[in-house]
Amino acid sequence: MENIVERQIMWGDLDALGIVFYPRYYEWIDGCGHLFFEALGLNIGRLWKERNILFGLAETSCRYFRPGRYHQKIRICTRIEALERKTLVLQHDIRNVKGDERMVLGLEKRICMDVSHPDDLQAMHIPADLFAILDRARPSA
Amino acid sequence: MENIVERQIMWGDLDALGIVFYPRYYEWIDGCGHLFFEALGLNIGRLWKERNILFGLAETSCRYFRPGRYHQKIRICTRIEALERKTLVLQHDIRNVKGDERMVLGLEKRICMDVSHPDDLQAMHIPADLFAILDRARPSA
Amino acid sequence: MENIVERQIMWGDLDALGIVFYPRYYEWIDGCGHLFFEALGLNIGRLWKERNILFGLAETSCRYFRPGRYHQKIRICTRIEALERKTLVLQHDIRNVKGDERMVLGLEKRICMDVSHPDDLQAMHIPADLFAILDRARPSA
Amino acid sequence: MENIVERQIMWGDLDALGIVFYPRYYEWIDGCGHLFFEALGLNIGRLWKERNILFGLAETSCRYFRPGRYHQKIRICTRIEALERKTLVLQHDIRNVKGDERMVLGLEKRICMDVSHPDDLQAMHIPADLFAILDRARPSA
Repeated sequence: MENIVERQIMWGDLDALGIVFYPRYYEWIDGCGHLFFEALGLNIGRLWKERNILFGLAETSCRYFRPGRYHQKIRICTRIEALERKTLVLQHDIRNVKGDERMVLGLEKRICMDVSHPDDLQAMHIPADLFAILDRARPSA
Repeated sequence: MENIVERQIMWGDLDALGIVFYPRYYEWIDGCGHLFFEALGLNIGRLWKERNILFGLAETSCRYFRPGRYHQKIRICTRIEALERKTLVLQHDIRNVKGDERMVLGLEKRICMDVSHPDDLQAMHIPADLFAILDRARPSA
Repeated sequence: MENIVERQIMWGDLDALGIVFYPRYYEWIDGCGHLFFEALGLNIGRLWKERNILFGLAETSCRYFRPGRYHQKIRICTRIEALERKTLVLQHDIRNVKGDERMVLGLEKRICMDVSHPDDLQAMHIPADLFAILDRARPSA
Repeated sequence: MENIVERQIMWGDLDALGIVFYPRYYEWIDGCGHLFFEALGLNIGRLWKERNILFGLAETSCRYFRPGRYHQKIRICTRIEALERKTLVLQHDIRNVKGDERMVLGLEKRICMDVSHPDDLQAMHIPADLFAILDRARPSA
């Protein structure tokens, strides 16, 4: 399963050189991670409120291939790159809609957390029902 | 009472024209509002956790006099402009440290809220002890 | 003429109370201002590169009616509120798609600027061809 | 050489769980990269305007050890992790001032770019004078 989000690069995303200021890519990637869960029927707001589960960040990275510029339409494809007992790696491939050239390749390693006590977040095994949903969504599946 | 915060304009604050992207001013103003409360001995985190009180936004505005540019040091002076039973207006005067020229004049009208039920925020009278602290901090006082 | 943009409130837009952190509204409003110009056939990137004209900010404001929350779909309607020789006021009405309740009413007063010399921005009369396009786009027109 | 920046976590840095929204770390890291250059006598604004050189991003990453929370004071130590003909890796170590516990370890791989033609950025060898300054600033040096 792949989730695809399109958006347009806006003035406020640019730096003084007229190219995307790189923390913006991480904002979009975070949003696409949430929408990927949503596309699997897993609403993160409900997981939190009803089951005290959130997928926090263990590690993130981006490689930058081409700069994003004003007004370009971009496409972000999100898919599972790896799935383990407690962790999930999402890959986010950001491309220029025009020409399909890759701009950025982002990774988020997310860890399943028990957030019952917000002041003391604990890593936990991904519950079996969620694991099954994520497992079926893997590209190889 | 006036609270003064200094900061430097960074690359990530700029737009493609090389001047500050205006939502950044609001981020700084929000931060300076919190530090103003802090300077009065009112920690917003504790007001929330211990008394279920937060000062939410009813209205904000900024007038822009001169653009902020890379690397400039700015000074933000925050003071109470008005105080009523439920509301407080903070004025934030943002100036270039070099030359003391005004860049931005911002206002935040904040309203006292009972946040016991996060899904149903309610306006409330500012409690007497907080009102007294704020009243003493007014410039005329 | 009214330009309408829909978007969804994302995790990264929220503050610790679970409601939209208000500078985000200004980021969206700025984007909707650009898209409003675009809908009139005025691409801001081209105005800048080809004619050295940008519409900078003189004043912005927002009034907050209801908090935005995770995952809500919002609709932002942008229209001209006032048009003068050098300035333009855009009104941005932000509503919850579900129920059509107003969340935020934002204003941007933008001033026409000659940006030939980025270090010395100058206010200027709105050129006649642009003024005519903006004038026809007024709600009363 | 190590450059140290201290800052305080503000309300607007938090997500709905009350911990820092991770793209904020990248904004701070970017700023600390600029301040690191500055501490070496290399003002990025002048490198750009006078020599058409900027250090763009090839890759960034962060590992998250502990969540940042409201009002905490953090310390960001920046140093050179690697230096090659065209590229530079900066390491940013973000710690809680109280207790000196690591929160985040960030890396930025920056590539020297000729920005004479903003629409066609080109990688280039780091000029000898800049390379010498960076080389002397390495921790081993």
